[in-house]
Amino acid sequence: MSATVHRLDSPRSNPGPQPSLDPMVKLVTTDMDQVNAVIVARMTSDIPLIPELAGHLIAGGGKRMRPMLTLASAQLLDYAGTQHHLLAAAVEFIHTATLLHDDVVDGSDLRRGNRTANIIWGNPASVLVGDFLFSRSFELMVEAGSLKALKILSSTSAVIAEGEVNQLTAARRVDLGEERYLDIIGAKTAALFAAACRIAAVVADRPENEEAALDAYGRNLGIAFQLVDDAIDYVSDADTMGKDAGDDFREGKMTLPVILAYARGSAEDRQFWKDAVEGRRDTDADLQHAVRLIRATRAIDDTFARARHYGQRAIDSIAGFANGEAKDAMIEAVEFAVARAY
Amino acid sequence: MSATVHRLDSPRSNPGPQPSLDPMVKLVTTDMDQVNAVIVARMTSDIPLIPELAGHLIAGGGKRMRPMLTLASAQLLDYAGTQHHLLAAAVEFIHTATLLHDDVVDGSDLRRGNRTANIIWGNPASVLVGDFLFSRSFELMVEAGSLKALKILSSTSAVIAEGEVNQLTAARRVDLGEERYLDIIGAKTAALFAAACRIAAVVADRPENEEAALDAYGRNLGIAFQLVDDAIDYVSDADTMGKDAGDDFREGKMTLPVILAYARGSAEDRQFWKDAVEGRRDTDADLQHAVRLIRATRAIDDTFARARHYGQRAIDSIAGFANGEAKDAMIEAVEFAVARAY
Repeated sequence: MSATVHRLDSPRSNPGPQPSLDPMVKLVTTDMDQVNAVIVARMTSDIPLIPELAGHLIAGGGKRMRPMLTLASAQLLDYAGTQHHLLAAAVEFIHTATLLHDDVVDGSDLRRGNRTANIIWGNPASVLVGDFLFSRSFELMVEAGSLKALKILSSTSAVIAEGEVNQLTAARRVDLGEERYLDIIGAKTAALFAAACRIAAVVADRPENEEAALDAYGRNLGIAFQLVDDAIDYVSDADTMGKDAGDDFREGKMTLPVILAYARGSAEDRQFWKDAVEGRRDTDADLQHAVRLIRATRAIDDTFARARHYGQRAIDSIAGFANGEAKDAMIEAVEFAVARAY
Repeated sequence: MSATVHRLDSPRSNPGPQPSLDPMVKLVTTDMDQVNAVIVARMTSDIPLIPELAGHLIAGGGKRMRPMLTLASAQLLDYAGTQHHLLAAAVEFIHTATLLHDDVVDGSDLRRGNRTANIIWGNPASVLVGDFLFSRSFELMVEAGSLKALKILSSTSAVIAEGEVNQLTAARRVDLGEERYLDIIGAKTAALFAAACRIAAVVADRPENEEAALDAYGRNLGIAFQLVDDAIDYVSDADTMGKDAGDDFREGKMTLPVILAYARGSAEDRQFWKDAVEGRRDTDADLQHAVRLIRATRAIDDTFARARHYGQRAIDSIAGFANGEAKDAMIEAVEFAVARAY
């Protein structure tokens, strides 16, 4: 066990160079080429619509965050095999299938600035190609040959689906509350981050406590990641953020900034939030008012503070592993995740 | 190898007692209680909408044909274990997930006379609960512990999804042709029948030729089953058939009766079919005209004849197994499948 202490200071008090994902990207470059080769090979089908639609999303500029975490975790453990390439591809397929179905469920028309597959090819095609990728992900896991990894990823898939249904039944409920919100993002986002990291310890045949440590790293990073995503939607400078500010507001999504602003607001403010979440206030003026209320209640600052809390837990959970390039990259990935908005 | 010969005579020339599924139902009663217990236990979730929606379909009067085939095949092999109970439940979950997504894709509002889940709870809930059941099916397979069964069922799931996409891209194309139609039903219906039977040989640790024989039984039965289903839609007496006659016609579905009537029709008839399949003819008078054309071209008779061909192949594929109650029930299930419409 090493005793190095890494603390996530509030980035505002620490105006050094911006943390970046680049060290992690660099760390896994060679492995990721293998994973990409698997992804491309397994998207194929005699039915041309399948690679066409799947490729639109898979080639669409995602960061491959989840397979990257599997690869980085394997390097942290000095794993020398290749079993994790198939599993990392499986994780990306689960994620892609989830995105395809999410966009149908939410009726989304844009993702990362591109038109969504359901808009281009229709909801039926998105549902079915999602099912195909999901099935392919299990084929890849079977090929990887680890029943334990299969168990983790199949149960994670069920948790993700449960989280999505939970979110659906919670839609447009202004009284959602922070606890249920954390349950939802824990299931729909953090569970796959956790599993992506944990399976590296499984294929490397490491003891249970190392599995648990990597699971905790992924889970806390996933929560931090989602919290920052939700906060960014209320930060007005869309160009810097790379996401259209106000989307969540216009869709009446209950995210932590709204939960805090609602809880801390006056009776009048609460009525505004209720109207907004239930879809009766969605103009630009309404959005500006929402941003004012969120600032007045310090809801954004505190959403970032919560994200730093989970980020710190992610960093501390891998403190016991040997220092080195992999660990440094994994720590900086957390710093990047929580500092994205500044 | 036994030399008993079972032939599927045309039921019109053989007006004896109707073949029935009852012997197979009776054969597997005890096992099916176990499978049902697994199904009920694994539909549960902390999110109430999940068991509510899944239960609507799972309790909705299906015959549990696919898990029944797993159980009957296991009895044919004198398998004495219980591993197949989990796998049979997994097969039913895959089937249920597929139905949920199918109804979303087709925009269906009725199934077996009940309102579909997508009509009651909406498309988003149907998509997500389908994903949940699909994930649960893989958890069950992992618990069953057979990597080989997992490989078969995961690859079958991918084939089903490919078949659905193939059907989607073939929708409303009057020139579909019998070969591509057989590809589609082979993938979306027969593949799961085949896998349901094959996995019994896998858990019973039987040689490859017995696996292949059971696969062939299920695959041919599945094709026969689907062909008869498609024919029934053009047989006018809805009460006897238990299915709303004309549904496929009004949805412009390309099924074998239409493919044959189109291929055999005059130029004028072909124009009628083109208009119908492309959605420009869907009145009751149009349906009556369609039924007349189908009768005139003997398309229904020949769809049933094709079904008997595949049914005969199903029966012949299990000729090599020992005679007994299980084999008799499996033969009568085929006779039932192809005779349903008479």
